[in-house]
Amino acid sequence: MIHSNHFMQYAINEARKAFDTAEVPVGAVIVCGEQIITKVHNLSISDMDITAHAEILALREASHKLQTRYLTECDLYVTLEPCAMCAYAISLARIRRLYFGAYDPKTGGVDHGPCIFAHSSTHHKPEYYGGIEERRCSKLLKDFFINKR
Amino acid sequence: MIHSNHFMQYAINEARKAFDTAEVPVGAVIVCGEQIITKVHNLSISDMDITAHAEILALREASHKLQTRYLTECDLYVTLEPCAMCAYAISLARIRRLYFGAYDPKTGGVDHGPCIFAHSSTHHKPEYYGGIEERRCSKLLKDFFINKR
Repeated sequence: MIHSNHFMQYAINEARKAFDTAEVPVGAVIVCGEQIITKVHNLSISDMDITAHAEILALREASHKLQTRYLTECDLYVTLEPCAMCAYAISLARIRRLYFGAYDPKTGGVDHGPCIFAHSSTHHKPEYYGGIEERRCSKLLKDFFINKR
Repeated sequence: MIHSNHFMQYAINEARKAFDTAEVPVGAVIVCGEQIITKVHNLSISDMDITAHAEILALREASHKLQTRYLTECDLYVTLEPCAMCAYAISLARIRRLYFGAYDPKTGGVDHGPCIFAHSSTHHKPEYYGGIEERRCSKLLKDFFINKR
């Protein structure tokens, strides 16, 4: 079995592309079996769309590629703890496992704030692991916001 | 000032279109001033996209039409209480007022479950009103799910 850090590397590469185009540097990868289905990054500014977070784009693209709305055999890797919008979308898409990098105490929706997977009304709850390659994921974000000041 | 029931009527008409195409009947309208910017309905099945809820499509379309990510002067009308994904997207888009029709105790994310607008980490909280044309909005949903059984 390929280690989760392996796939997170691809998500970090995507986050770097976001960084280079002045988007908040978050990248996401969806994996099925041991195959990468989609690699994307946040496009909120260039798409002029607040819903164009990396996770939403990844779910949409994977559904189109696999021709199914339900990604029950897929795992999602993302460099930042998903917000509530993305966490609930991950549940709706029935993602099997979620791996995220940096924790986000301010706007995270998995281990913080609305803690989407903690509610009985969230029918599908993926297995999830935070802090995968955390230092590298959060460094990109810190560098980005330092440049913004 | 035009009464909120007026704009909800357009959202109900959109929900009917969803009903007629075997989509879960939810419709949404975004209004700026007293002008309708976008009228859409749920397209999750036909778009093969679990994120294609009426609210998400409405936010995306309004942002493209108005050429801004932040819909601070806009109000959103939707026939069903938004789920957590849509509620957080509404917050991200900085919608001014949210009017919804039927309450959704099972998967609603505004007055139920994760109660997205109740968290201090949800930075923008729209003014919101539930139960607008509630009976008509929920009848469409009940009729839809009865047909499904």
